[in-house]
Amino acid sequence: MRGRGDRLAELVAARDLDLLLVTHLVNVRYLTGFEGTNGACLCGEEKRLFLTDFRYTERAEREVEGWDVLTVSGEWLPGVAEQLAGRVGFEDDHLAVRTLAKLEAQAPDGVELRAAGELVEGQRRVKDEQELEAIAAAAQLADEVYAWSLERGLLGRAEREVARAAEARIRELGAEPSFPPIVAAGPNGALPHAEPEERQIGRDELVIFDMGAQLDGYCSDCTRTFATGEVGGDEVEVYELVRRAQRAGLEAVAAGKEGRAVDAVARELIAGAGHGERFGHGLGHGVGLEVHEAPRLSSRSEDTLAAGEVVTVEPGVYLPGRFGVRIEDLVMVTEDGHRNLSGLAKELTVVG
Amino acid sequence: MRGRGDRLAELVAARDLDLLLVTHLVNVRYLTGFEGTNGACLCGEEKRLFLTDFRYTERAEREVEGWDVLTVSGEWLPGVAEQLAGRVGFEDDHLAVRTLAKLEAQAPDGVELRAAGELVEGQRRVKDEQELEAIAAAAQLADEVYAWSLERGLLGRAEREVARAAEARIRELGAEPSFPPIVAAGPNGALPHAEPEERQIGRDELVIFDMGAQLDGYCSDCTRTFATGEVGGDEVEVYELVRRAQRAGLEAVAAGKEGRAVDAVARELIAGAGHGERFGHGLGHGVGLEVHEAPRLSSRSEDTLAAGEVVTVEPGVYLPGRFGVRIEDLVMVTEDGHRNLSGLAKELTVVG
Repeated sequence: MRGRGDRLAELVAARDLDLLLVTHLVNVRYLTGFEGTNGACLCGEEKRLFLTDFRYTERAEREVEGWDVLTVSGEWLPGVAEQLAGRVGFEDDHLAVRTLAKLEAQAPDGVELRAAGELVEGQRRVKDEQELEAIAAAAQLADEVYAWSLERGLLGRAEREVARAAEARIRELGAEPSFPPIVAAGPNGALPHAEPEERQIGRDELVIFDMGAQLDGYCSDCTRTFATGEVGGDEVEVYELVRRAQRAGLEAVAAGKEGRAVDAVARELIAGAGHGERFGHGLGHGVGLEVHEAPRLSSRSEDTLAAGEVVTVEPGVYLPGRFGVRIEDLVMVTEDGHRNLSGLAKELTVVG
Repeated sequence: MRGRGDRLAELVAARDLDLLLVTHLVNVRYLTGFEGTNGACLCGEEKRLFLTDFRYTERAEREVEGWDVLTVSGEWLPGVAEQLAGRVGFEDDHLAVRTLAKLEAQAPDGVELRAAGELVEGQRRVKDEQELEAIAAAAQLADEVYAWSLERGLLGRAEREVARAAEARIRELGAEPSFPPIVAAGPNGALPHAEPEERQIGRDELVIFDMGAQLDGYCSDCTRTFATGEVGGDEVEVYELVRRAQRAGLEAVAAGKEGRAVDAVARELIAGAGHGERFGHGLGHGVGLEVHEAPRLSSRSEDTLAAGEVVTVEPGVYLPGRFGVRIEDLVMVTEDGHRNLSGLAKELTVVG
């Protein structure tokens, strides 16, 4: 993890800053390995300072490598403020207005605080080997929970019960859900981000099942759409359309491709079949310590993919009042394509 | 819930504001009942506007009462900004610096944004009947999980396994943990906010067990310290000291009392026994939709208690390298005292 502080220090210098104050906890964890609930970093050319309070001193000395550990005694913000010097960037996309005002009031003379968000988020985009392994392990664990869930069947169970059981199973296997699983059958599948309901899953319905695991901090994300019997011709047609769009999206992924262009490949295919209006979200997003992070694959994305990034590819078509289909894989971007971390079949699978 | 918007509108007017923009989701939930992940409120004399995005339109129309529901199409912040008018307060303790900058850039001419945090937090302090029932139900559920945990025994189990099992049981009973349970035995009990470890709980140890449930959004919080056999004279002495301090703290609670004074009653008792330095946290905190909220019982508190507030009373003594004791009840403040929502015995209980 030591190299992360060094690389960040280069970004800080390139922004003409003396220091960056990192307060967003997931960024603090990325840089230092610290997993507690209160900590901050100061990073600059000559400085690798991790600050926490007395509750975490012992833990920080155990967990944090490559950073000096300082325990702030007394009040937190004044203790942080007195460590600031020169031109100090702060994470303006996370820091609260009041916190900034307090830091400004309490910082030593000559300190100038400047908005400098997303430096660490940018750094987090490309994963190292250890991170890729953690994400792959989380994805594999989620695959196992899919298999376990399908063995128990879908038909006649309440959506909510299926989701709850999957969550419990993820925890039994030593992970956490990366988000509350979505189980949305029949017309519920057409509601964007439907919450699982008490409604029983009926026969001959399509069921969207969206789930991920978080293991050692790293998330996975996967969606499949299953059938609980013989679904109609429209359902099969839309399913195959989404599957084709998903395959096309996957094939468009490679280092150097624009997020916008990858999105467009899948979107045009769906629009060409007359369902463009029914695909109301982006094609995908980065996944790592957070289940939604940079880069984005969407019509508004300004990101260009790089090798080692991990993104979802998840087109969907949602027909209000009828049904929805979404198919999502998690893939690692490579120089000439991608490596798929989701191991589940994508043929329309009938589950009793 | 309708009355909450009306009362907030009075606070907004008293601050000489035309509107308050509420963006902190737990405050949005308090005001409107909305439980989704993206929503905001605008509240003023003539305005009760709830904003969300297309994912939540249907749900908001079902859940939100007494507020007009507006679905923001297109980008979120510009959509919110165009609804602003006049002097608009914002929640400066939660709103990110960048978000404020975007709102300022995108708001119509004449809009003046002013820091106005904690208005809703202040309103949330005194609970209504329905909220009190929800908190009492959460506390009762946690009591059941304590009983269930103790039936399974503590001796020889790993701290982490006890904590995990309790969490799973809370979920089985239809709630969520209000925080990850703390199970800290022997010397681990002396570490502030110790994380449960793989270490097995030994014979003749004290075990701090701190746990709460969240049910229908409302939290509970309770701590007991158990013995796994015959503990030494020092342990018993400190236990009884903490128990006396806890009782004294409880007896000091009543409407009109200062949080600082209630804290002092328990603290002086512990200091009188020579352990003042070993009680390194405040005596208690408010509990509601969040497990830590206003008011505070501590030496720095500026709060005065009011009937209908719900607070913890939780003195502790921690002897580094040896053991810790904490005893915590959750109580409702009444005009002349308190009503205890925690039903567990406080005699030192031996658990095998």
